Amino acid sequence: MVCGGGVTATHTYVYDFTEGDRSQADLLGGKGANLAEMTRLGLPVPPGFTITTEACRVFLDTGASPAELPAQIEAAIGRLESTTGRTFGSVERPLLVSVRSGAKFSMPGMMETVLNVGLNDETVEGLARASADRRFAYDSYRRLIQMFGKTVLGISGHQFELCLDKARADAGVTSDSDLSAEQIEQVVARYKEIIEERSGSPFPQDPRAQLAATVTAVFASWNTERAVIYRRREDIPDDLGTAVNICTMVFGNLGQTSGTGVCFTRDPATGHRGSYGDYLPNAQGEDVVAGIRNTLSLDEMKALDPAAHDQLLRTMDLLESHYRDLCDIEFTVEQGTLWMLQTRIGKRTPAAAFRIAVQLVDEGVITMDEAVMRVTGAQLTQLMYPQFDPESLRTHFVTGMAASPGAAVGRAVFDSATAEEWADRGEKVILVRRETNPDDLGGMIAAEGILTSRGGKTSHAAVVARGMGRTCVAGADQLVVEVDARRASANGTMIVEGDVISIDGSSGEVYLGSVPVIESPVARYLEFGLEQGLAGLGESDADLVRAVHRVMEHADATRRMRVRANADNGADAARSVSFGAEGIGLCRTEHMFLGDRRVYVERIILASSPDEQQRAIDALLELQRPDFIEILEAMGDRPVTIRLLDPPLHEFLPDRAELMVRTALAERDGTTTTEDVELLAAVNRLHESNPMLGLRGVRLGLVIPGLYVMQTRALAEAVCEVRRRGGAPQVEIMVPLVGSAHELRFIRASIEEVLHDVGAANGMQLDLAIGTMIELPRAALRAGSIARRADFFSFGTNDLTQTTWGFSRDDVEAAFFAAYLSMGVFTVSPFETLDEIGVGRLVQIAVEEGRAASPGMKMGVCGEHGGDPRSIHFFHRVGLDYVSCSPLRVPVARLEAGRATLAARTSTSASA
Amino acid sequence: MVCGGGVTATHTYVYDFTEGDRSQADLLGGKGANLAEMTRLGLPVPPGFTITTEACRVFLDTGASPAELPAQIEAAIGRLESTTGRTFGSVERPLLVSVRSGAKFSMPGMMETVLNVGLNDETVEGLARASADRRFAYDSYRRLIQMFGKTVLGISGHQFELCLDKARADAGVTSDSDLSAEQIEQVVARYKEIIEERSGSPFPQDPRAQLAATVTAVFASWNTERAVIYRRREDIPDDLGTAVNICTMVFGNLGQTSGTGVCFTRDPATGHRGSYGDYLPNAQGEDVVAGIRNTLSLDEMKALDPAAHDQLLRTMDLLESHYRDLCDIEFTVEQGTLWMLQTRIGKRTPAAAFRIAVQLVDEGVITMDEAVMRVTGAQLTQLMYPQFDPESLRTHFVTGMAASPGAAVGRAVFDSATAEEWADRGEKVILVRRETNPDDLGGMIAAEGILTSRGGKTSHAAVVARGMGRTCVAGADQLVVEVDARRASANGTMIVEGDVISIDGSSGEVYLGSVPVIESPVARYLEFGLEQGLAGLGESDADLVRAVHRVMEHADATRRMRVRANADNGADAARSVSFGAEGIGLCRTEHMFLGDRRVYVERIILASSPDEQQRAIDALLELQRPDFIEILEAMGDRPVTIRLLDPPLHEFLPDRAELMVRTALAERDGTTTTEDVELLAAVNRLHESNPMLGLRGVRLGLVIPGLYVMQTRALAEAVCEVRRRGGAPQVEIMVPLVGSAHELRFIRASIEEVLHDVGAANGMQLDLAIGTMIELPRAALRAGSIARRADFFSFGTNDLTQTTWGFSRDDVEAAFFAAYLSMGVFTVSPFETLDEIGVGRLVQIAVEEGRAASPGMKMGVCGEHGGDPRSIHFFHRVGLDYVSCSPLRVPVARLEAGRATLAARTSTSASA
Repeated sequence: MVCGGGVTATHTYVYDFTEGDRSQADLLGGKGANLAEMTRLGLPVPPGFTITTEACRVFLDTGASPAELPAQIEAAIGRLESTTGRTFGSVERPLLVSVRSGAKFSMPGMMETVLNVGLNDETVEGLARASADRRFAYDSYRRLIQMFGKTVLGISGHQFELCLDKARADAGVTSDSDLSAEQIEQVVARYKEIIEERSGSPFPQDPRAQLAATVTAVFASWNTERAVIYRRREDIPDDLGTAVNICTMVFGNLGQTSGTGVCFTRDPATGHRGSYGDYLPNAQGEDVVAGIRNTLSLDEMKALDPAAHDQLLRTMDLLESHYRDLCDIEFTVEQGTLWMLQTRIGKRTPAAAFRIAVQLVDEGVITMDEAVMRVTGAQLTQLMYPQFDPESLRTHFVTGMAASPGAAVGRAVFDSATAEEWADRGEKVILVRRETNPDDLGGMIAAEGILTSRGGKTSHAAVVARGMGRTCVAGADQLVVEVDARRASANGTMIVEGDVISIDGSSGEVYLGSVPVIESPVARYLEFGLEQGLAGLGESDADLVRAVHRVMEHADATRRMRVRANADNGADAARSVSFGAEGIGLCRTEHMFLGDRRVYVERIILASSPDEQQRAIDALLELQRPDFIEILEAMGDRPVTIRLLDPPLHEFLPDRAELMVRTALAERDGTTTTEDVELLAAVNRLHESNPMLGLRGVRLGLVIPGLYVMQTRALAEAVCEVRRRGGAPQVEIMVPLVGSAHELRFIRASIEEVLHDVGAANGMQLDLAIGTMIELPRAALRAGSIARRADFFSFGTNDLTQTTWGFSRDDVEAAFFAAYLSMGVFTVSPFETLDEIGVGRLVQIAVEEGRAASPGMKMGVCGEHGGDPRSIHFFHRVGLDYVSCSPLRVPVARLEAGRATLAARTSTSASA
Repeated sequence: MVCGGGVTATHTYVYDFTEGDRSQADLLGGKGANLAEMTRLGLPVPPGFTITTEACRVFLDTGASPAELPAQIEAAIGRLESTTGRTFGSVERPLLVSVRSGAKFSMPGMMETVLNVGLNDETVEGLARASADRRFAYDSYRRLIQMFGKTVLGISGHQFELCLDKARADAGVTSDSDLSAEQIEQVVARYKEIIEERSGSPFPQDPRAQLAATVTAVFASWNTERAVIYRRREDIPDDLGTAVNICTMVFGNLGQTSGTGVCFTRDPATGHRGSYGDYLPNAQGEDVVAGIRNTLSLDEMKALDPAAHDQLLRTMDLLESHYRDLCDIEFTVEQGTLWMLQTRIGKRTPAAAFRIAVQLVDEGVITMDEAVMRVTGAQLTQLMYPQFDPESLRTHFVTGMAASPGAAVGRAVFDSATAEEWADRGEKVILVRRETNPDDLGGMIAAEGILTSRGGKTSHAAVVARGMGRTCVAGADQLVVEVDARRASANGTMIVEGDVISIDGSSGEVYLGSVPVIESPVARYLEFGLEQGLAGLGESDADLVRAVHRVMEHADATRRMRVRANADNGADAARSVSFGAEGIGLCRTEHMFLGDRRVYVERIILASSPDEQQRAIDALLELQRPDFIEILEAMGDRPVTIRLLDPPLHEFLPDRAELMVRTALAERDGTTTTEDVELLAAVNRLHESNPMLGLRGVRLGLVIPGLYVMQTRALAEAVCEVRRRGGAPQVEIMVPLVGSAHELRFIRASIEEVLHDVGAANGMQLDLAIGTMIELPRAALRAGSIARRADFFSFGTNDLTQTTWGFSRDDVEAAFFAAYLSMGVFTVSPFETLDEIGVGRLVQIAVEEGRAASPGMKMGVCGEHGGDPRSIHFFHRVGLDYVSCSPLRVPVARLEAGRATLAARTSTSASA
């Protein structure tokens, strides 16, 4: 360990900037490590030192700073004094320092900066003399008191603003810079009164007391509520602590040869090569952020101060090639001298991320592996959706949840039939409903987008819309939808059927009228390939598409996990193949029971005899076979997982309450029909208080065996037919909602019997794989036993999340997720990103115990989480073979599966 | 290892009866071990040998018997021949044997017995000559062919019955014993034809072939479906295998000095001392069972054959003192010689079990520990309920599920209000409903019993009825209940309001009119103590009550787990103390929101402002405080766990569908009221598709914080008041439906704040324990983390079962549990007996990880399983501190907790 500058201490809590390097972010925080790195590179960093995160951890554990710390700080200050020739607290040549927090990860929840520490009623006079600028000195003092009051003493900034407002008003000026030195002195006096009134003590005149209080405040800021919630959301451990950086003040506000700025080594908005930045002459850092004056570009700075500009550009080159990435830099010029105050890897837009990643590869700076790690699935997603033209004017109507991204414009319609009818005649429509259900499917397919007033990000509307790539804004709870009246109103505005609205599924905003939409070139490339993707593009877009292409190619070559799609029909299947899906991980057969076919389900339910029931089941068979043929042909020899019927039968019947109303009214009118009476009786018989926990899945398959037999037969016959046509379909039959190996044993026997019969009748061997969803906690807990009856597992993480947490995504998300998110119970909806420590633990148990019982068993996931970046990394780590997601999320899954492979390699080699 | 009689083999698969003892049931099966034991005791057991379970396991594993087996059997037959002086297959002195299966545990699912193996067309003549009874010989041969055909070849017994019927008809007689030798010879000839027709081969004439085929059939019978299901139901491992006992035939049908019988060393019906049995002269074993002729008592046998009777009695004494328990014996007398064919520990009625257990203690045969192990909670339960007089005449009406045991008689009423009204004027009523809901509570309390046409053993009606000790028959699905018409009909009979019916909650039967009821003296003792329990009893009942008392006293002194009750009001609390409860493990506060108080809940929901909502909440506080005072006073210084509000708010609102109908009709009539419109809007707003997975429990507590604050305040004030009155209440506050430590953290903070405030206002320290239900899989999986925020855990195994399996007890039990039970997916409803390998695994995880995080933490269970005997043993094994159950099940829980302690000790010392 490097020992803190000459001090012989039991433990070193203080490191000069000259001692550390960028690898020490754990100890020195990100900011401190980078300041040390720049110092090490010989760049002009003002002298300073860093108090370690370790000191902070002692404070957090014991409530007090380490006993050695004051002496070590004092020694470091002594070194600063000898380096700078200034003295802390001296009137003659006062040493002033900035104090800035800096954790390992950037954390906006913490206290950030106090400047000008060391000023007091006496040293301010020394600064005035030394700078020959009394106004500057008192303004610096004012800033110190204000920042100290706010961040160290917790006094509302509003107090100080009011005081400053009054000073401006009294002086008859509008800008602080127009206040005279004397006027600012008065402000300082008033500020000191505020401090004493609010904190009960005067503003500390001892610079060492200022410094000590500020350091302690930084330590304590680690545990503010905002910081705690931020860490939970970003998955940053709670026990890291923050470092504190103490740096000699340099002043950009010492006249026109001084200034301050921020700059980037490439354009963070576009990723294009070149230096980009903002410079503000005669200003301090906070002025740039405040945006009071217009900043200059770096070119304009060059004209003003060519030497400093030249030095800055050389420094930027040095930093980028050193850090091998876009750097974000803060600097100050003090009377012609350049000082580097901070650097870090710069944030960038999604387009810039892809462009920069491949630029750096082409420049020989990084490898393709690194390029893939430099972009994210979330960035790719943002690039895929059309957007409203940011330049356009809009009239806001209502706000809901960003449920399925994209930008859609169309005429408002209020029911599925109208949506289909209008779409058939060429109208673009937006389907507006209180909420949707499977009956609205036709309308949702016909519509450009869906807007609902109820339900959250995982409501039926949202899930189905995401699945089919429709834009959706859900749960706009200010919106009152009157379906019968064919109108909806919000915030005092009413729209009627036919009115054009524009919905932004990426932001949740809804606008009146038509907002211009810009299509995504990246989405076109991802769906139709490079050639079609590039057709007709300008150079900038083409550059982006090529960059995305190269990243995707490498991710595909790298990833271990396969990527499949959830698709229920031939068209979706074909589309998912376009997007790069390597199979279907979930084909839901219930969609094949809807629409016109509902009548058969009704007949099955209402049948007065087993024979009649069987006839209705047989009729469905004839309809299901071609459905399967279509999907199998679309997928060629890629694996296709067909899930047998999952939902409870009454989902195919009319709504019970509505039927009761209709029947009661008919009875009153004397127009009762036997059909309605029988239907109501059936609905009542099948009614369940909690259908999610009812007679569905394999339970239904076992209680009405004809259903699964029919589906298996239709599928087996489809396989035979496709084989006859020369195909080689790879079918996996998946049994839903299994909780016990016994259920699977019974259902498997009847499936195998059908396969054998159909095979024999067609002269073929039908050895289709038969597996099960793992979507109940019990299935996960009994996976070892279930694995002995199953050829594969597919994790249904939606249902598994519902039962593990005991809440249904239909019901509770809207009701309390918002409250839970704001309290910090959740940092993200567990329906969106897998709850690794709860639900994920069950997944892990099932993988381990399933594989122990059946080594090498194929396992995948087909819940919504299969398309979620963070969850994909988890699935890679636990060893799944594939993820399956909605067709549109396939590219994201491909990318993240590649990144997961690389991330696991890195962490393995790091821990090795 | 004892080596099989002189044969030098690599492994011994055959043991003579002279070689084993009763400790070898694993190897020899129960029957074989007892035969060996009796042989060892010098009792007259016909010579024979046992083929081990090990041989069977080889057969089950490999599909073939061990290679050594035929030679070992042959050698054992050789030893039999020399012992008996007879020869297998000899015409002169034929050796005949019986072949009987015998696993470690008695298993009715398996093949049982083939007698007379060794007879063929030649040896039958030898037997005829040796016995000088041709008819006897051919009848023996007939029996062999029939049993062989049925159990070895799987030919339906019906075939043989038809043939025998025809012989009787042809001969013009009604009984087999009236058939002549020649007529039986013809039956034998026809039987052989049946064998050849059905099996394709003639009846094997080689005695060794007969024996080998029979042994193989016994082995294979281990895996018949019935046997598999039986084992699953009884929790018998699948890999034990069965032994096969081969025993020299003795004949009870060789004239009037022969006979066969079964006997018991005490009366298995009453437990009274003395020998009890049935004897049938001139008969074989199966004739006793067939019940064709009336049997004689042992006294009557004495008159017939004093010597054999005397020998039998001495043998019974010997066996009972040897086995130290009631023995069940099969014997045969062959021409004056007594032969013991089987003995085992005898089954007995519940009353006999208790009487015999303490008798044996008093006789110095067993210890009190053993006596407690000799009875079960299920037996105690049966003793507690009143029963319909078994002698009475009855008219059957309908059958449902035995949902809550007991016998109840009363007038049928069809709604809660009528039930209460009639009960108030002194009528006994039975509440008849399609199903019940919390609104029916008043009526259920007022009624003698409840009868529903829907729902199963864990429907609302069943659970609440069991909780309050009301008799309930649920799910009588033949019953059509017309509430509006105040009538119900089933099987062509209609009852109207006021008609008297009698319901038997122990059998599920419902009778028309009044059936006389006999009260249980045991129940009276358990509730009111020994003195009151004995008052006015006859000697036999008093004897039983004293026996139960001694067993219960010892169980209480022995058990580690405490027993609490689930009680929601002062009366139930007091009653549970009478039954021996040591605290309340679950006080549900939602019952305090029902009835008249519903209006406040409506006001909370419909409130147009937070102030209005708070006023409604405050009004409830005034009502809740006295509720709590009442309960706390009833419980003295025993612990009381109060669960904060659990169900979703809309449970307190009217049914949505009914309200929709009412509103629609009112609209039609122009009589719409604003109240209804507002109510409907609120109901719609709060409507949930799956309320079980909705906004309830801690979620509600966090979203409407005023609710839990009010409840905590009412409770805290109640504690203060009771303390002022000199009490020392021990209160534990329990938070329902927690899934994450964060939820508990937030709610705990607000509870602690209220406790602090109320404590300060009353000058008291209120350090109430604050704990949580573990009733969601996630809570179990995160127990380590949750334990750091909780003072105790209480497992809510009802909800945990629902979410772990993903089925709601309201919905699926009736829909598919019956099918699952008959298929063998379940052997028992997981809502009745804890699913140890699934749900139980979560309990175990939570106990282990919770205690690891918080050593010594108090943990209990308050689900229905807390009163289930088998589950109680599981809870003991995983280390819970207490179980809590409905007041009436408290005695059973006390007994089983004692038995669990003893059972664990035994298994520990056995494994040590």
